[in-house]
Amino acid sequence: MTETPRTRVGATPAGRRQLRRALATAAVDLFAANGYEATTIDDIAAAAGVGRRTFFRYFDSKDDVLFANHDEIVAEMEQVFETADPARDPIEVATAAVSLVLESYAAELDVSLKRFTLTRTVPSLRDKEVATVDRYQRVLARYLQDRFAAAGDEAATLRAAVAAAAIAAANNHVLRRWLRSGGREDIEAAATEAFTLVADAFRTTGGKPSAEAEPGTVVAVLSTATPLHEVVTRIGAALREAESR
Amino acid sequence: MTETPRTRVGATPAGRRQLRRALATAAVDLFAANGYEATTIDDIAAAAGVGRRTFFRYFDSKDDVLFANHDEIVAEMEQVFETADPARDPIEVATAAVSLVLESYAAELDVSLKRFTLTRTVPSLRDKEVATVDRYQRVLARYLQDRFAAAGDEAATLRAAVAAAAIAAANNHVLRRWLRSGGREDIEAAATEAFTLVADAFRTTGGKPSAEAEPGTVVAVLSTATPLHEVVTRIGAALREAESR
Repeated sequence: MTETPRTRVGATPAGRRQLRRALATAAVDLFAANGYEATTIDDIAAAAGVGRRTFFRYFDSKDDVLFANHDEIVAEMEQVFETADPARDPIEVATAAVSLVLESYAAELDVSLKRFTLTRTVPSLRDKEVATVDRYQRVLARYLQDRFAAAGDEAATLRAAVAAAAIAAANNHVLRRWLRSGGREDIEAAATEAFTLVADAFRTTGGKPSAEAEPGTVVAVLSTATPLHEVVTRIGAALREAESR
Repeated sequence: MTETPRTRVGATPAGRRQLRRALATAAVDLFAANGYEATTIDDIAAAAGVGRRTFFRYFDSKDDVLFANHDEIVAEMEQVFETADPARDPIEVATAAVSLVLESYAAELDVSLKRFTLTRTVPSLRDKEVATVDRYQRVLARYLQDRFAAAGDEAATLRAAVAAAAIAAANNHVLRRWLRSGGREDIEAAATEAFTLVADAFRTTGGKPSAEAEPGTVVAVLSTATPLHEVVTRIGAALREAESR
């Protein structure tokens, strides 16, 4: 039996992803066990079975390693936008893209919980996380801006920035609640509730308020306590007035 | 003529605010002139006429000095919330509070423009700015959560987080556009447009969609092309049906 030649870890794209993940897991475990400040880059590299120089081939700093998969998520989001059906509601596409963040957290519960504790206790990591969210929020905003502008919305940039922030906030809310439950809560149900709230808030047709009626339409709101003959008289008068305009 | 005894700068609250501001202005000027990296804390302290130790009595780091008035703004916001009329729309109160940020930027145009250039060119400062926004966004969210919860909104935390993010995003949009115009654009008009968009999106009554009509009400939408007798017949039928329920 011939032995399959073993590729050195890090020599192929899959190997690089694997090593990147190994470094990230080692870092989170060490931070959780020994504290963030006390953990050195040498410790992390050693735990993943590589040298310090290899660490720096993958990450710029100790902070970076904690948000290792962020670049991947942003790239996946961009792919969702590129391949999205242009007829689909833009807010719906954006919430689908942001769900990738939830999925990636759910796929690595242990790492996610440890990171959650770290971001709540180390201010610099909290800031790093906020900057991370800001980055994908800008990706969302760019997509929404293109879609809103294409629909003729004059306030496309503003509406896109506001909607993207709302979507990111809804996503963070779901994520934090789920992490606080130790990953036991139904993350999908919570996400549906949160994204529905955002979709309801920003359900627009190019930014025009829907209060104005189409010409040639009569809207009548009357209490049923109004006598029937009175209703008929009023509707008739409204219709004649509308037609004479 | 007796000489008025001069108080040492930094000995009174007003003097401390003045020195704090002098350090901030000196820092921004030096960053703009010589670059952020090249400027040392000693340079900043010297430019403000104090020593390095005095600098550290006011700021923790070189980054902090760039967002010197942030604490003041957050304190002012909290005061707006404490003294706000409980009958006033919560979104309106929140946008009024966040306007304090716009006002503080507008009051120091030169510093604001230099800082804007720095945050666009130095990634660590950009991250710091994002963290700053996140901080006041959380203050907004806390206020909105209390108000929404008091109004019986079951999704108060979620809605508050989303609305606060939307308000902060609208505010940033206005601020950036205004800074990009070199401070020439009408910041108040832009703020009104942006906050109206947010208010429209989140105008709710405890989170219930307004699509459901009150019981005992008939809403009729009919084209005026419908013959009058047909309109009357349909309205009559709808009313009788509603009454018989």
